[in-house]
Parts: sequence; structure tokens; C-alpha cells
Amino acid sequence: MSKIKGSNAERELIRLFWGIGWAAIRSAGSGSMHYPSPDVLAGNKIRRLALEAKATKDDKKYFSMEDIAQLKNFSNYFGAEPWIAIKFDRKDWVFINPDDLKSTGENFAFYLKDLENGLSFEELTSVS
Amino acid sequence: MSKIKGSNAERELIRLFWGIGWAAIRSAGSGSMHYPSPDVLAGNKIRRLALEAKATKDDKKYFSMEDIAQLKNFSNYFGAEPWIAIKFDRKDWVFINPDDLKSTGENFAFYLKDLENGLSFEELTSVS
Repeated sequence: MSKIKGSNAERELIRLFWGIGWAAIRSAGSGSMHYPSPDVLAGNKIRRLALEAKATKDDKKYFSMEDIAQLKNFSNYFGAEPWIAIKFDRKDWVFINPDDLKSTGENFAFYLKDLENGLSFEELTSVS
Repeated sequence: MSKIKGSNAERELIRLFWGIGWAAIRSAGSGSMHYPSPDVLAGNKIRRLALEAKATKDDKKYFSMEDIAQLKNFSNYFGAEPWIAIKFDRKDWVFINPDDLKSTGENFAFYLKDLENGLSFEELTSVS
């Protein structure tokens, strides 16, 4: 997936959060700094979510162990909940606890067929 | 000040926060989205700081009313404290509550001569 497509997915997510009165920003990435940073950070007065956000036309999405470790690491320092956000083609965003991803041995995966195991945006944001 | 110089100032600030065990990210900016976003967002398990971060070779730094309104607006939604961070040449970073900026009528200003009115990085991050 191109960088531009990735940014569009992140922007869509940010619109969703602002639409329900949460604040959300895209991270500029740590660049040469080697500090972990999520794709999107969203929050309201009660909760903070660090999100790795990806769109895919495939029926599965892989995440490197390093990406997941960094997401959890950042979340631990910042005091945020780590979440994976995936936008499959023609589906609504699905949100997955990184601990619920399946290990393939080399990396982590989430499969379109397991869509029911994730949370919808409404479910994600209605917990408080 | 160039965009590159601004990014360098933000990176320096991010290093400071990680150096004391806080997490910090640079915002990619809202771009065409018109949502408010701070330059830097830092946090630990207890506090969250939204920062407008600027470096200057001048003996004063101006902020538009719009910039300050957006910083406070974002902070209010996200549940963060709004802070102004200024790096004057050959001085340590100084942190100012946006309500303590001086109004010039058209915008807000902070003057090098008022350095004592701001907090040092240690003072900013030792409050809990």
C-alpha cells in the first residue's frame, strides 16, 4: 500500500473520532529518532487510544512483531490503550486488541473472516 | 523560521520527554482537514501535555490568536494541558501557560525578558 493511501486511511479515522467529539492527530513518525509512535493518537477526557491504522484490499493484514512491540511500548509510556485499526474494502473499520492478533510465527495477522472478533467504531468508543 | 528548523525544535523537545520516561510524538498536522493539532503531544501515565513548540533567534515570540485558540480547543477535547514551549537562542526551553502570554491586541507574545515567568523543563514535568 502506498504512503498516500495509508495517510488517507488515517485521515478517515481522524474524522470519525472528531465526529463523536474526541480529539485525534496523526503522528509525524519518529523519523530518524527511533522512538515508537502510533499512526493515530485519539483521546477524550477519559480515554486515550494509540492506533496502528491500515487499509487493505486483501483479505488479511500482517503486522511485524516490531510494529506491535512499538505500539505497546508507546502505549505503556503514554498511558494509552493500544489498538489495531483495519479498513478492509467495503467494510467498516474494525478495531482489534493487539493481543488478539494471530501469530504466524514470523509476524502477526488479522483475517477478514475473523471480522466478528473485532470491535466496531461504536463499540470501541462506547466503552468508558 | 523555516519548517525544517521548526521540526528540529520539535525533535529536540521529544528527546527531552523520552529522556525522562515520558512518551512524545510530533503531530503530522491536520493538513487539509481543519482539525486543531498541537506541534507535540507528550504524556505519561498521569499527565498529558499538548505543546505549541517554537524556536527563535529573536528576543520575543508571537502567536496568532487562532493558534492559541486551537491549542486550547484541542487540549480541551483530548483532556490535555495546553502549553507553549519556546527555545530562545542559547537559553533552555521555557514553558508558558497560554493564559500567561501577553496580548498585543492583534496577537499574543512572550518576551525573552520575562523568561523567569515561565517554567523550566524540570519544573514543567515535576508537577504531578
